[in-house]
Amino acid sequence: MSLLSTKNLSKDYIESVMEKAKEMEEYKGNAMKGKILATLFYEPSTRTRLSFETAMLRLGGQVISVADSKSSSLMKGESLEDTAKVVGKYADVIAIRHPQAGTAKKMSENAGVPVINAGDGSANHPTQALLDLYTIIKERGKVNRLSITISGDLKNSRTASSLVYLLANYDVRLKFLAPEKLKMKGEVKEFLKEKGMDFSETSDVEEGLKNADILYATRVQKERFENPAEYELLKDSFVFNRAMIEKYNPNMLILHALPRVNEIATDVDNLPGAAYFRQVENGVYVRMAVISLLLA
Amino acid sequence: MSLLSTKNLSKDYIESVMEKAKEMEEYKGNAMKGKILATLFYEPSTRTRLSFETAMLRLGGQVISVADSKSSSLMKGESLEDTAKVVGKYADVIAIRHPQAGTAKKMSENAGVPVINAGDGSANHPTQALLDLYTIIKERGKVNRLSITISGDLKNSRTASSLVYLLANYDVRLKFLAPEKLKMKGEVKEFLKEKGMDFSETSDVEEGLKNADILYATRVQKERFENPAEYELLKDSFVFNRAMIEKYNPNMLILHALPRVNEIATDVDNLPGAAYFRQVENGVYVRMAVISLLLA
Amino acid sequence: MSLLSTKNLSKDYIESVMEKAKEMEEYKGNAMKGKILATLFYEPSTRTRLSFETAMLRLGGQVISVADSKSSSLMKGESLEDTAKVVGKYADVIAIRHPQAGTAKKMSENAGVPVINAGDGSANHPTQALLDLYTIIKERGKVNRLSITISGDLKNSRTASSLVYLLANYDVRLKFLAPEKLKMKGEVKEFLKEKGMDFSETSDVEEGLKNADILYATRVQKERFENPAEYELLKDSFVFNRAMIEKYNPNMLILHALPRVNEIATDVDNLPGAAYFRQVENGVYVRMAVISLLLA
Repeated sequence: MSLLSTKNLSKDYIESVMEKAKEMEEYKGNAMKGKILATLFYEPSTRTRLSFETAMLRLGGQVISVADSKSSSLMKGESLEDTAKVVGKYADVIAIRHPQAGTAKKMSENAGVPVINAGDGSANHPTQALLDLYTIIKERGKVNRLSITISGDLKNSRTASSLVYLLANYDVRLKFLAPEKLKMKGEVKEFLKEKGMDFSETSDVEEGLKNADILYATRVQKERFENPAEYELLKDSFVFNRAMIEKYNPNMLILHALPRVNEIATDVDNLPGAAYFRQVENGVYVRMAVISLLLA
Repeated sequence: MSLLSTKNLSKDYIESVMEKAKEMEEYKGNAMKGKILATLFYEPSTRTRLSFETAMLRLGGQVISVADSKSSSLMKGESLEDTAKVVGKYADVIAIRHPQAGTAKKMSENAGVPVINAGDGSANHPTQALLDLYTIIKERGKVNRLSITISGDLKNSRTASSLVYLLANYDVRLKFLAPEKLKMKGEVKEFLKEKGMDFSETSDVEEGLKNADILYATRVQKERFENPAEYELLKDSFVFNRAMIEKYNPNMLILHALPRVNEIATDVDNLPGAAYFRQVENGVYVRMAVISLLLA
Repeated sequence: MSLLSTKNLSKDYIESVMEKAKEMEEYKGNAMKGKILATLFYEPSTRTRLSFETAMLRLGGQVISVADSKSSSLMKGESLEDTAKVVGKYADVIAIRHPQAGTAKKMSENAGVPVINAGDGSANHPTQALLDLYTIIKERGKVNRLSITISGDLKNSRTASSLVYLLANYDVRLKFLAPEKLKMKGEVKEFLKEKGMDFSETSDVEEGLKNADILYATRVQKERFENPAEYELLKDSFVFNRAMIEKYNPNMLILHALPRVNEIATDVDNLPGAAYFRQVENGVYVRMAVISLLLA
């Protein structure tokens, strides 16, 4: 068993992660003693790598790591399949981040041990979506019947699409707020239509914030743009500040996968619903849960 | 509580570190079991990072690490404040090195966990100064009434100024030996004057070594020069060899924060007072002490 | 005691590693509790570094690491001797990889703790050779009286020469299969002649594979070529595929130190004798054995 995508997770599995993560908040045990997590990061990331490593260490396990693809054997021309077969001999579970969609899946087919997709290009980032969901439940006590606006670079954001796939298991109202050029990927909208889920799209900020219980903001993904000029044009598309939030709903729950660049002004940080740093803490619990369930 | 600078440390605190470090020389326990140290190194360093990590591991704790700023989220444009808030959710204590003065302080204001300044630009490097002091006490049995010459790049050396701030708690005679262009920072001399401490300055090597009980040599800090030609001109300003040391005091205690380039000729290494590699060992004990006291 | 080369290892030592490695296959203990391994990698390598780290962690020990020479103090101009003296204060055992022959030896003369050569330029890589030997014994139940063909870049391969030095302790028939420009190093052939060992050389693939019980294939070492054009010319000198192997010996044991580029076609992977990924697993056991014996 690997965790590669949120697209086809069963509601049972999702709920078992939520329960296990809650348990992890107080965990002081040693369940992963003698087990090794390998973190293979072919794209720079502090946050996600350290979150996985913290999770494994707090479970009593150990970590081996490739933090920087430039110091890896890929330089010597090895295939990902071979790397998977090798690292699978060292580690009991692998977390991989890679700029290319589908890489985690390919690794899981070859490693012989569970693989966790820690982000593959613009495609998926399941532990992020699970921690987003966990944060919603922890902060609001429920998911159903909430109005959730997802904003920013919805064309490139794997966290946005991963969360939407999860939320499709619940009765929520989704609104996608994005500039025309960064609209939500067609395949995600197709998926929602097939599921019979309601959603709307807008590029107007006021319209996007109206009636929102939750705002999930995403960063414009500089590293996914081929044309830097286009990035410069779009990077500040939506910048939310305290006044804007308070105008529509001073208790709005505000989520962000981080790092933020300037999508959320720092004057938002002290609003009661600004939960993005609490998300970071929840991420450790959720990753502890995911690792525990994969190696149970 | 964080450890950011040696400037305002109380003598009580300094002495508690000295005592705790002595205890750590024989330590075989597990006091930091379940605790995590994050080492965030935004400047290259083998020595200091590995010393902190060794200290934490010998205390029974665990480590997460960013050894190379290029693989960190700073590339994605995140503020240091946000990074602090994030890493503070993972680690129980953070050691940060950064090229810019004041960074450790800013991190400590945001992390929510103790922060240890592992060197911020030309400003401070408190654990280095504490291990220097510990070495003096261990090697000479006392600090008071010693004549201490501090030489080299006193304009840029954070280890030199950090040590001077510590030594200002003792009754010592300080001499600053530096080329005209690399003289001790004015703020340090102001601090000494306010404290009523005696010190002298010279750019003459013979004058600098005369009557010295201790020579604390520093490297000319290539990475702080804007003009490479100026570095080339000054880099070999003072090169101490065995004959020079023996002429003045064959038992002189010779300290260096390492890495040395060629400030100390290798023929000095076998002199009884050449303590720079013993400093390295003491550094682990002192860092064990600092971590223990911060998390006590 | 350090492990620097396979050239002068006693048969007793070799056999004690083989025995200990077998024991390690079932090891669940904690013998290295409180001990620290430093992995210093001055050349990129995922496989070998992670293998050493996995070995130490599975023994209950801990790891400090420099995965990337660019983030090390060597940038600040420190000598290898000084680095050795420093890291020897942190770690109980050091595994070093370096592009230059002789570096591990120099480190062992200065560190004051056991040093394991994890590959020094084109010279030696003893743990690789020991795991190769272990794999032969595990797969074939013996070494004596086997015909072993070693192919590829025998001029630059440290794994090939390291293995030959080991095999010189046994009664084997060696054949070196290499393009004219990449023939086995003269010093290795001299060594075999002095030992009175039989060997032959060829650049003809058919001749090389004929009668082989074992094929040990090596990668053409791109990073050792000064002239990229020459690399391009030679890189595909020998590419073994399933048909070629089956023609001569469908049960041939096929070994490779990995990473493979394209010396072995992937259609070979499912042959019963394709043992290169099993070698990876054996590498962990052998490194556990080597560390255990050095620190016993």
